[in-house]
Amino acid sequence: MGSKITSRKIDYSKWYNEIVVNADLAENSAVRGCMIIKPYGYAIWEKMQAELDKMFKETGHENAYFPLFVPKSLFEAEEKNAEGFAKECAVVTHYRLKNDEDRPGKLKVDPNAKLEEELVVRPTSEAVIWNTYKSWIQSYRDLPILINQWANVVRWEMRTRLFLRTAEFLWQEGHTAHATKVQAIEETKLMNQVYADFVENYMAIPVIQGTKTASERFAGAEETYCIEALMQDGKVLQAGTSHFLGQNFAKAFDVKFATAEGGLEHVWATSWGVSTRLIGALIMTHSDDSGLVLPPNLAPIQVVLVPIYRGEEQQNEIAEVANTMKKALENKQIRVKFDNRDKFKPGFKFNEYEVKGVPLRIAIGPKDLQNGTVEIARRDTMTKTIVNQDKLVDFVLNQLEQMQGDLFQKALDFRETHITEVENFEEFKNIIEGKGGFISAHWDGTEETEEAIKKSTKATIRCIPLKSKTESGKCVFSGKPSNQRVLFAKAY
Amino acid sequence: MGSKITSRKIDYSKWYNEIVVNADLAENSAVRGCMIIKPYGYAIWEKMQAELDKMFKETGHENAYFPLFVPKSLFEAEEKNAEGFAKECAVVTHYRLKNDEDRPGKLKVDPNAKLEEELVVRPTSEAVIWNTYKSWIQSYRDLPILINQWANVVRWEMRTRLFLRTAEFLWQEGHTAHATKVQAIEETKLMNQVYADFVENYMAIPVIQGTKTASERFAGAEETYCIEALMQDGKVLQAGTSHFLGQNFAKAFDVKFATAEGGLEHVWATSWGVSTRLIGALIMTHSDDSGLVLPPNLAPIQVVLVPIYRGEEQQNEIAEVANTMKKALENKQIRVKFDNRDKFKPGFKFNEYEVKGVPLRIAIGPKDLQNGTVEIARRDTMTKTIVNQDKLVDFVLNQLEQMQGDLFQKALDFRETHITEVENFEEFKNIIEGKGGFISAHWDGTEETEEAIKKSTKATIRCIPLKSKTESGKCVFSGKPSNQRVLFAKAY
Repeated sequence: MGSKITSRKIDYSKWYNEIVVNADLAENSAVRGCMIIKPYGYAIWEKMQAELDKMFKETGHENAYFPLFVPKSLFEAEEKNAEGFAKECAVVTHYRLKNDEDRPGKLKVDPNAKLEEELVVRPTSEAVIWNTYKSWIQSYRDLPILINQWANVVRWEMRTRLFLRTAEFLWQEGHTAHATKVQAIEETKLMNQVYADFVENYMAIPVIQGTKTASERFAGAEETYCIEALMQDGKVLQAGTSHFLGQNFAKAFDVKFATAEGGLEHVWATSWGVSTRLIGALIMTHSDDSGLVLPPNLAPIQVVLVPIYRGEEQQNEIAEVANTMKKALENKQIRVKFDNRDKFKPGFKFNEYEVKGVPLRIAIGPKDLQNGTVEIARRDTMTKTIVNQDKLVDFVLNQLEQMQGDLFQKALDFRETHITEVENFEEFKNIIEGKGGFISAHWDGTEETEEAIKKSTKATIRCIPLKSKTESGKCVFSGKPSNQRVLFAKAY
Repeated sequence: MGSKITSRKIDYSKWYNEIVVNADLAENSAVRGCMIIKPYGYAIWEKMQAELDKMFKETGHENAYFPLFVPKSLFEAEEKNAEGFAKECAVVTHYRLKNDEDRPGKLKVDPNAKLEEELVVRPTSEAVIWNTYKSWIQSYRDLPILINQWANVVRWEMRTRLFLRTAEFLWQEGHTAHATKVQAIEETKLMNQVYADFVENYMAIPVIQGTKTASERFAGAEETYCIEALMQDGKVLQAGTSHFLGQNFAKAFDVKFATAEGGLEHVWATSWGVSTRLIGALIMTHSDDSGLVLPPNLAPIQVVLVPIYRGEEQQNEIAEVANTMKKALENKQIRVKFDNRDKFKPGFKFNEYEVKGVPLRIAIGPKDLQNGTVEIARRDTMTKTIVNQDKLVDFVLNQLEQMQGDLFQKALDFRETHITEVENFEEFKNIIEGKGGFISAHWDGTEETEEAIKKSTKATIRCIPLKSKTESGKCVFSGKPSNQRVLFAKAY
């Protein structure tokens, strides 16, 4: 704590890592690509989980738990899905260690304990879940199945970054089964909307909803809906996805149901997920060169009280007032910490909570005792206000609400000024290399063009936005006709 | 649903499995030894998690998350711990699959993607956590560290049973670091007490607290505290453990701290955990030949409303009253389900909720509408009471509380009549083979005697109870002097 954070302008990537580490959110572990989520970072994840879980339940979903391991023969059943994840699979091949005769006291893998069939550590659970749904679904009466799972998954990434891309990450994955295509598509859209609501209202991150092009779809999906968010460096982060899986998994696992009319049909599927990656988006959207900035709705500590005193007597006097304030604030469901540690100076504490992004800091010194005031500093604007103690609770409630709204508005303003409509490829390249952000451009709808643009600029089609008007134009790359703009950007 | 459950007397083990499956709690998966926790079973686990999590936080603990994988070199660092788990380790050896040329569209493990160092899927996380604590702890100011983790772990069991013994299970594991031995032992005892409070007050399962003998200790612990519960078949289940780890892990991972006096010492450690195994204990303590019986404090549905009607008009009339009742009950934080499904008859529903152990069932028919009454059936006693609708809320609140207490008392009475003091080994064998339960007997304190008794009777020392008077006597097996009785039993 107390170390200076590298400025965004000097080295954005370094700035990001220093925020993660200095704000005590996470750190790298001894296991390649796997991170340790520290208590303060995990507390943010818990807040996110609690809110999402509530939203899932309100939309009729229940939680369940399926195995960590997927037998290879199940994993490969849906070929596109398997192909999409094959290169990232951690594989369990043995089930026992034994003493290593060559190294007393050490262990080695027991060659006699080789599994008959290898087990894939789940990179996603469609296979193991649809193999289960096969026995759960016989008739239309068994549908829909609306299940969510909170779990860890493993995707063996070669280049990892804390929260953004890790070999193991925490997520939720919804897996639903429906009698009709229409219902499955409705579910896919509904959950994408739930994600958008959550990310905008709780994380204060504005998102653009859209669908993915074929090449960017989830492996095994017919359509992928997504929410895309712009980071401060002009790159875009996919914050959540919701997939319409058609009957692909039902066919791969032979899941059929008797219809009300007496027929027999394959079941329709969706899956949808968000992960600890969202914490990366949270950091990159709001934080500044002084450290993390947290939206009040997700902050584990919303208000910190820091006493300023000389000597034990003064400390005790202030503590009495501070504890009374703490109680009053807690009565309004505000999450408060009173940091009365004697071994650290106020300046040190100020810096700590600044780096940790605590929305409001209340300082109370001897003068405040005399005057019946406190000094309140707001993390995002760094403004300080002297407030009468008897108006504290209302002031705090108001500021927390204000800050939540302001953070969203600031991010929205930034995004709105970073969606650039371009009409030719020169302009496209200039924007991508310079200003960054989203480029709204016409595209001829072919994979070839998409690939060529990616090769030339590293920009990909982030989504075909749901809210966009039909507009005829010419593809920014090929000049061929197009009737809708899509959004390009460099992406995380 | 609706299928008869095997009686406990005829086949206890079959009865248990049928309850798990028929009450929709869990089922076996395609992965050897791994279970699928179904939504109803998972909802019970969520209730347990919520309460335990609250208790952990109230005692100063925070949650964090550590990697699923443990590099073999870390795993083997604390030798006793490693030796204890080596035979049950799932091991990841490769990180990629590739197309299998011999089977088009299928995959095989890519031999070129062999890991330099194998990764153990965590059977417990001491190794990976203490390797981390090494960098977190420099001085006494960094202590104590009080961290808990909710996670999945894998122990490759050869003979598995739903909830009781599965290759993968869900649990929480607390890992704390302390400056002094005294503090670490206090923490160990505190968390064992937290477990006892939770299991007794929420799960309505009486437990005996004690310490394990050396041979039954957690691998790597200096002392293991435990809570032991008696099941209806006379066998005992270890419901939770809390370990004082001494300085073993600090020494293995070289974790030292600067003391306030300027010295340098190894850190003291504890770890403690409970798992989804507790759901097995819950089932076996309270359930009967009609199905699951759930204590109200943990029941996902505490009250189910079942309408009895002929025709749509009557259904609508009853639904109106039922919905009003539901709201009134929910206002008191009671978890209520109104089952208004038209495709199932009341008898079918009655059976379903009986099997699922819903504490109170309220039936409302046309006569009840006329009389302003309902019929309330209590799951544990199977008693039915006609109650005036205007007294419904008070009656339900009272009955839920009563039932919670009664279930505990019933289990306690059963246990108290199944602790048998024995003075010689003949008696010991008779009790173990006949009546079952705990045997309170003198033991000479040697591992040889413990082992000989186990070999002869399959009974093990469940614990040296914390609450027991010093009493001189003779070992039930060897006749050697002893000054305290210990508790033997056959165990799950």
